[in-house]
Amino acid sequence: MTLPQTNFTPPFNITRASHLVFTCRDLAASRDFYTEVIGLKVTDETATTIHLRGVEERAHHSLTLKKTKDQAACERVGFRVFTEDDLDKAKAYFDGKGIASKFVNVPFQGRTLHVSDSAGTPLEFCARMKTLPRVQTRTHEHKGASALRMDHYQVLVPDVLDAAQFYVDLGFRVSDYICVGDERIVGIFLFRKNNPHDMVFLTRSGPRLHHFGYIVQEMHHVVRALDAAGNLGHAGSIEHGPGRHGHGHSYYVYLRDPDGHRIELLLPAVQIIDIDDEPMRHDVKGGNTNLWGLPPPRTWFEDTSPLAGAKIKSPAVEGDPFTLEKYLFAQRAEAPSEAPLKKRA
Amino acid sequence: MTLPQTNFTPPFNITRASHLVFTCRDLAASRDFYTEVIGLKVTDETATTIHLRGVEERAHHSLTLKKTKDQAACERVGFRVFTEDDLDKAKAYFDGKGIASKFVNVPFQGRTLHVSDSAGTPLEFCARMKTLPRVQTRTHEHKGASALRMDHYQVLVPDVLDAAQFYVDLGFRVSDYICVGDERIVGIFLFRKNNPHDMVFLTRSGPRLHHFGYIVQEMHHVVRALDAAGNLGHAGSIEHGPGRHGHGHSYYVYLRDPDGHRIELLLPAVQIIDIDDEPMRHDVKGGNTNLWGLPPPRTWFEDTSPLAGAKIKSPAVEGDPFTLEKYLFAQRAEAPSEAPLKKRA
Amino acid sequence: MTLPQTNFTPPFNITRASHLVFTCRDLAASRDFYTEVIGLKVTDETATTIHLRGVEERAHHSLTLKKTKDQAACERVGFRVFTEDDLDKAKAYFDGKGIASKFVNVPFQGRTLHVSDSAGTPLEFCARMKTLPRVQTRTHEHKGASALRMDHYQVLVPDVLDAAQFYVDLGFRVSDYICVGDERIVGIFLFRKNNPHDMVFLTRSGPRLHHFGYIVQEMHHVVRALDAAGNLGHAGSIEHGPGRHGHGHSYYVYLRDPDGHRIELLLPAVQIIDIDDEPMRHDVKGGNTNLWGLPPPRTWFEDTSPLAGAKIKSPAVEGDPFTLEKYLFAQRAEAPSEAPLKKRA
Amino acid sequence: MTLPQTNFTPPFNITRASHLVFTCRDLAASRDFYTEVIGLKVTDETATTIHLRGVEERAHHSLTLKKTKDQAACERVGFRVFTEDDLDKAKAYFDGKGIASKFVNVPFQGRTLHVSDSAGTPLEFCARMKTLPRVQTRTHEHKGASALRMDHYQVLVPDVLDAAQFYVDLGFRVSDYICVGDERIVGIFLFRKNNPHDMVFLTRSGPRLHHFGYIVQEMHHVVRALDAAGNLGHAGSIEHGPGRHGHGHSYYVYLRDPDGHRIELLLPAVQIIDIDDEPMRHDVKGGNTNLWGLPPPRTWFEDTSPLAGAKIKSPAVEGDPFTLEKYLFAQRAEAPSEAPLKKRA
Repeated sequence: MTLPQTNFTPPFNITRASHLVFTCRDLAASRDFYTEVIGLKVTDETATTIHLRGVEERAHHSLTLKKTKDQAACERVGFRVFTEDDLDKAKAYFDGKGIASKFVNVPFQGRTLHVSDSAGTPLEFCARMKTLPRVQTRTHEHKGASALRMDHYQVLVPDVLDAAQFYVDLGFRVSDYICVGDERIVGIFLFRKNNPHDMVFLTRSGPRLHHFGYIVQEMHHVVRALDAAGNLGHAGSIEHGPGRHGHGHSYYVYLRDPDGHRIELLLPAVQIIDIDDEPMRHDVKGGNTNLWGLPPPRTWFEDTSPLAGAKIKSPAVEGDPFTLEKYLFAQRAEAPSEAPLKKRA
Repeated sequence: MTLPQTNFTPPFNITRASHLVFTCRDLAASRDFYTEVIGLKVTDETATTIHLRGVEERAHHSLTLKKTKDQAACERVGFRVFTEDDLDKAKAYFDGKGIASKFVNVPFQGRTLHVSDSAGTPLEFCARMKTLPRVQTRTHEHKGASALRMDHYQVLVPDVLDAAQFYVDLGFRVSDYICVGDERIVGIFLFRKNNPHDMVFLTRSGPRLHHFGYIVQEMHHVVRALDAAGNLGHAGSIEHGPGRHGHGHSYYVYLRDPDGHRIELLLPAVQIIDIDDEPMRHDVKGGNTNLWGLPPPRTWFEDTSPLAGAKIKSPAVEGDPFTLEKYLFAQRAEAPSEAPLKKRA
Repeated sequence: MTLPQTNFTPPFNITRASHLVFTCRDLAASRDFYTEVIGLKVTDETATTIHLRGVEERAHHSLTLKKTKDQAACERVGFRVFTEDDLDKAKAYFDGKGIASKFVNVPFQGRTLHVSDSAGTPLEFCARMKTLPRVQTRTHEHKGASALRMDHYQVLVPDVLDAAQFYVDLGFRVSDYICVGDERIVGIFLFRKNNPHDMVFLTRSGPRLHHFGYIVQEMHHVVRALDAAGNLGHAGSIEHGPGRHGHGHSYYVYLRDPDGHRIELLLPAVQIIDIDDEPMRHDVKGGNTNLWGLPPPRTWFEDTSPLAGAKIKSPAVEGDPFTLEKYLFAQRAEAPSEAPLKKRA
Repeated sequence: MTLPQTNFTPPFNITRASHLVFTCRDLAASRDFYTEVIGLKVTDETATTIHLRGVEERAHHSLTLKKTKDQAACERVGFRVFTEDDLDKAKAYFDGKGIASKFVNVPFQGRTLHVSDSAGTPLEFCARMKTLPRVQTRTHEHKGASALRMDHYQVLVPDVLDAAQFYVDLGFRVSDYICVGDERIVGIFLFRKNNPHDMVFLTRSGPRLHHFGYIVQEMHHVVRALDAAGNLGHAGSIEHGPGRHGHGHSYYVYLRDPDGHRIELLLPAVQIIDIDDEPMRHDVKGGNTNLWGLPPPRTWFEDTSPLAGAKIKSPAVEGDPFTLEKYLFAQRAEAPSEAPLKKRA
């Protein structure tokens, strides 16, 4: 297997992962979670829809919650393109490829183009959104994690190379990739902005949205968020962490919102700009891949947000992730009660 | 059940939990763990013994490691008394009670009195220890958690009221206690110093040393310790946390040293001084008792350090702790893959 | 000069610095400062009086603000004694010494004894105060610095040895003292609680209250307080810092409340308990005494809160403090524009 | 005055501020400062030259120190271009404009182009540099501030609009600008990367290098750096801060290296990508422009690093900065000793 090659003269200019549209069953519960624990700010609110943004964002919204009576899902995965002209180039590009796309009207956004990626993820692109003053310095008005800004998406797909190809054709670069055995690439991290990432693909049946990440400024903001979760009835939302990823990645915690949508809070990632800052290969050999922190539980590997309208396919090879459950079983099945913990796998 | 009543005119003046003596099978591995991850400073070192202290401590040692070829154990649980005179009063007190005690010579310590508490925990008391300049401001020489000072011990005993009575007779106050059902007290937190705790008893077969705690200054010191653990081959030592205790207690992480001895790193606790700052009752009703963070794994409930020479007895009623394993099973046994996590018990 | 010797069998048991009574000219402005910047909680409030406490305190108040039309002042400097019996012993002790004292009624407090120390500082002692549940874990309700608890007082007096003698007679220990030249002691730090300090004396005309200190948990709480100050019109209240004291002391920032009363926010100090943890001598030789941070400005040396009813006397030898103004003058008077800063004195 | 308009189709692709070349008189002293206080890593070292990088940087160096016996200066201000092809385009562009430029050989760098900007700042561009593995997760090997990466330069120039025009022609965008009175622009912040800034111009005689900034991860890294400075004889290097800038900018501290070169440590700035994230105007009306923290001292306004070969010109209108000295004089000249601090200007 070889990595897809970046197209340095993309047909149009996507600049960043920017906003998500979710459906949820209990708007009040979700509002409480995102404002009190995550610390997002409500910028618009009706009986059926809430728009939220991070405290650093000038853009009107990075998360839109819509009330549903059906199963909660992710309706759209949003990216920014740089100019209005890029939207027209995008339309022409997709038309030329025979990929269905259409312009739609979305409140608080400029012209918005809907399309699905090669894996079936429902995307939308826009160049403009209503702006508001940043409030990142008004820390006396912040709550919970004081989440700064939307950072990235992780989507599970049956074929990560195929999924990634769609994006590298559009100018995304690969920062990291994960291999199992000699040659099988099972994970690819893609970015457009300098402080990656924007889109991450891992191999499992899909397309399904695994999680989205918001940047927080310092680790104590994570702690404050978890205190808020504990005090306000959201302690059960903490699924995994706090911990530190392996592969040179950041500190994290994963929470599940009241509908089960998974959010990662993470510290700012490294900066990647230079052309000679080449993709890093990480080989997974079983065992815990974190720098520290227990492995993720089964729910982390299995549970996802459905992507509206996407048709699920299975991968050629099913993975066998090293879960927290396996880790704990190995600890206890073999360790006598007064011996040290086993060295981790 | 009623709490034992504090004796405000104790027979002698114990001032604080101060030092532990452990045996371990691989001195070099333990040295690496305690200096690089926990951040203790070596104050004396021979082929068979290492003395360590926290960066804030003027006392020569708060942890003594002795090489053994046998099973690693805790040899002594140390407390300070205020003056040499208190040692003589202590001897007279134990003699009067018919409790065996004897003076012994311990390197770097003044006269030292050995005795066992009513549960069988091997104790030692001294009034003086060699002193050294504090190094807490020399942060450029700090490593890992920069652990400041020894804080408290937790010992498992079959009868917490009986165990606590020994200490309240000696002037210890109760800060908190844990009840199951209407009246059964299963945990007691005891203190002499203003920034508790000094000794904690929980109900299980014992006496066995569950853990000892060192204070760290800020949460980022915990993070730095865990980074060090991850980078230096000690990631498997992380057993539980980081998280925040319930009951108004502090942030924590529990690690297991190379011999399985369990250390808690925690932030400074509240200050308890006033006589009207009365014991807090906490009722445990099953489920996770943390303010946030997953429940402790089975190893946390089951594994301990043996106390040298102690005879183990079982409690009248066996507990049924809510383990991480039970929590995960409950999550997964019932939750469909695209539903939210269950509300925690 | 020699340090006064601690009286280890004091006539009654003072346990800690506990509460202050201030007058202020604009209650609303002071309320805003103490709740939004410092993070204290209002526990009682009338048109003329506000009671506040730190988020960790069970005691009803550690700061009482009373409206005045006169010059703002400090009315009382409060300490806790351990029991009601200690109050009676205190009364007998002062009577025996011919020191005027009287019992008074103070809202929310048990019996309260008024007396002045040998320097003229108006004190009050009580053993009991109404209690309330701690709120230190409810961080989602915290503001500004989330100040935990009252810590210590610093009083300027013309004769520090005389002032300290009053306290060491009552069982206070000396943790540190500051010398100028060979033998002149100009500062003494005194404590009763394990996590000092309680009372600090520096040599200047007095008695005048220089500042009082509240403990904060971590440095980022200081930063949040300063952000709040900046956003809410209190940026001018920041007089000195953030910085780190020399002499092994903690991180600090000094602010002036709307009436000019000076508050220090500081991180938890070291623990001092052992009898062999002997007083540390620090020799001041001119220049900046901070471990880092610019020297304090003239206002920090000169401005104080008057102590109600106290008669001001001058010291035998006037000091000549190294101010920020002197430091800056030395920098600029001699350094050419493209040379490095001068090495600090 | 109006802002120069961004050229969205620049003649070649500059990606970021990347590296500086300084001369210094005492290599050992500078090495100590940059490794122990700032936390940079030495990547190459000879008797006359030291190359350093931040712990997150893959690029071989972001700071080059060369021994000199003359006055210490800044020899080159370095930027990255994206590809080798961009270097050729750059050469052609400067040739076309009649601006002298030449290719030179620089160790560890690919082809490097030397040129001066319109203000006379000596620049260099390269597309490639030797790479090394990032070490940002190896926190046990970090020191001082653990500085992550070079961020931006601030240059004093007599005409900020003229200086900025050179850069906007090359594709730089304006994030912020500072006005005095109705129309006079005295400061311009320019960026190419998403996490600005790259180049900042302020109006004073010049061109002179005012400072360069390195990003640190969290505020406690600043504190650790200042502890190191205090302990290792560099306390006098702290010139201004810690504080928080106004204008929505970040937390900062400014230090002076042993030759007087000024370094800012700052937390990650906001992300600016969207085309509708338009330049922010800030009006300066005298007084302290910080959100909090005392104003900068005169040295901060006056002292600079000479730029090799640059010819200094004065601005049309001389500024009258609000210095710490003025602030302190205003405080003390008018405030009686028991009154509050004056409200800051």
